Amino acid sequence: MPVAPAAAPVRIAVLGTSAIARSFVEAAGHVPQIAPTVVLSRAQETADAFAAEAASLGTTMAARCDRAAVLADPEVDAVYIASPTTCHEADVLEALDAGKHVLCEKPLALSLASFDRMHDRAREQGLVLMEAARAVHDPAWALIAEALPALGRIWHARFEMCQYSSRYDAVRAGEHRRAFDPAFGHSALSDIGIYTVLPAVQLFGAPERSVSTSQSLESGFDASGAVLLTYPTLSVLCRYSKVSATTTGSTIEGEDATLRIDSVSEPGRIEIERRDGTRETLLDQAPRSVAQSMVHELADFARVVADGAVEHPFARISRDAVAVMERAYSEGAAAS
Amino acid sequence: MPVAPAAAPVRIAVLGTSAIARSFVEAAGHVPQIAPTVVLSRAQETADAFAAEAASLGTTMAARCDRAAVLADPEVDAVYIASPTTCHEADVLEALDAGKHVLCEKPLALSLASFDRMHDRAREQGLVLMEAARAVHDPAWALIAEALPALGRIWHARFEMCQYSSRYDAVRAGEHRRAFDPAFGHSALSDIGIYTVLPAVQLFGAPERSVSTSQSLESGFDASGAVLLTYPTLSVLCRYSKVSATTTGSTIEGEDATLRIDSVSEPGRIEIERRDGTRETLLDQAPRSVAQSMVHELADFARVVADGAVEHPFARISRDAVAVMERAYSEGAAAS
Repeated sequence: MPVAPAAAPVRIAVLGTSAIARSFVEAAGHVPQIAPTVVLSRAQETADAFAAEAASLGTTMAARCDRAAVLADPEVDAVYIASPTTCHEADVLEALDAGKHVLCEKPLALSLASFDRMHDRAREQGLVLMEAARAVHDPAWALIAEALPALGRIWHARFEMCQYSSRYDAVRAGEHRRAFDPAFGHSALSDIGIYTVLPAVQLFGAPERSVSTSQSLESGFDASGAVLLTYPTLSVLCRYSKVSATTTGSTIEGEDATLRIDSVSEPGRIEIERRDGTRETLLDQAPRSVAQSMVHELADFARVVADGAVEHPFARISRDAVAVMERAYSEGAAAS
Repeated sequence: MPVAPAAAPVRIAVLGTSAIARSFVEAAGHVPQIAPTVVLSRAQETADAFAAEAASLGTTMAARCDRAAVLADPEVDAVYIASPTTCHEADVLEALDAGKHVLCEKPLALSLASFDRMHDRAREQGLVLMEAARAVHDPAWALIAEALPALGRIWHARFEMCQYSSRYDAVRAGEHRRAFDPAFGHSALSDIGIYTVLPAVQLFGAPERSVSTSQSLESGFDASGAVLLTYPTLSVLCRYSKVSATTTGSTIEGEDATLRIDSVSEPGRIEIERRDGTRETLLDQAPRSVAQSMVHELADFARVVADGAVEHPFARISRDAVAVMERAYSEGAAAS
């Protein structure tokens, strides 16, 4: 459902200047309904540098470090939050209280209680709150959902994201890297495991039961693990790692065929392999950048804001994923 | 460690006339230390037909239906038991009490209590009891164990056996098939899931913790499931199904490389895939029949009997697998 052409773009203040915030601005360049107009950082120089980079991409942004003033600015409709995970709740509530819609990087919350506090506030304020989980908005998942009946009765799915982090060589050498520091809310489950839990709850809903295992580095950083979900008629394995890589991909296994997905975060190749050995390619697209795959998320956010859809369908998916992940965090903590 | 050339072959009575018993006789044709001399069935005609088939393979067997007499026969050293799983304990104890060594088809037992009763009896009698779990004896697993250090720190392994059963089309059409009847002790976990649990406990020992899920047909037959094992430094997924097929194979995932195995029951192709993209093939052999892959199990049984090794190392592997599977059976029963 495209936004009506007459709708004014959503004017967005970007909170944070990390790599994902840069991808956001790049993606917004391809979404007319989204206009990043302000970048907000604690340091003016950081904001200036970010705005300069945005300008080089053709996007004019004001560089500011006066948070209260930006949040009070009537020319700002929404805030995109790309702060550390541990700051999300405070940042989200502050933006909502200032009357702004919010798009917040994943993971929005590490617990259901926190998730519900934020969504309750959004509801009270009549504002949109959406988790920036770009894979959820990728049209590839709609394609996959449509293909499921062709698999026959589905017994199992495996969603897998195992990437040897570009920072892990340094960590192995004894150096500190923030992406491997639990103090910043990082864990392999919250950082990349979320990409394996989201498709499960997106396609199959909330599981009846979930159990998990996780293994940590000596520092206590949760580096690798798996969550096993039980549904009435199927099981789903969510497998993630920041310290080892695999290339076998993800699968949805039916009686008559198996669907194979090369990547859960940026699906590029989707294939059906039937029991008789025949294959059908449903999607085969060139690898995309993070920014390219964020375009759909931004378009959905603009549409939800334009519709004033405070109770949008993506919140259910995010909430079901938080519930699964919170149980896994507590099992990991209990095990360590 | 080959059996000394002077050792007389172990003379074996085969209890049961199923497909696996035929494979046993075929395999024995390639193992000089094993001599199947008698086939025992409840019906004389069934025994006669089996003996005729054995003769066509060059093996002379007496066809008998007088169980007590066969067990009392001093010319019989050991019994190979290929009866239904639900009969294993009674058959094993009877053979041990008659003073015979026992090789019993997998799963030897469905519970630790049953497993221990049988092994306690074997110990009391000073006889060998071994589970016929052919994959455990396949030299491919020794090759895999030797290759593990090349993977770097190991974080996860996935052992997978998903085969759309040749009998399942009939079951889907509403017909009865014994292999899908829980009343005969059948379940996907006990029938083929065992092949995914055995390599886990063979390579990594008993897990600290195991959790599982399983999904059943309307008949109550456990058709598909997964067991997730937790070790201090890694996790292992055991995934099995008799109602869906996959071709992604099994993997052992280390920091520096992933080892890929095409089949856990009859490993044919074993490959190392390093993080830098290079690959090394450790094994690439033509597909083998069940009989061909049973040869190693028979040779090991003959050696253990010749050594009088009542406390042989394979019992530890079988027992650890029973412990994992018993927990999974009870979780499945609790869930259904």
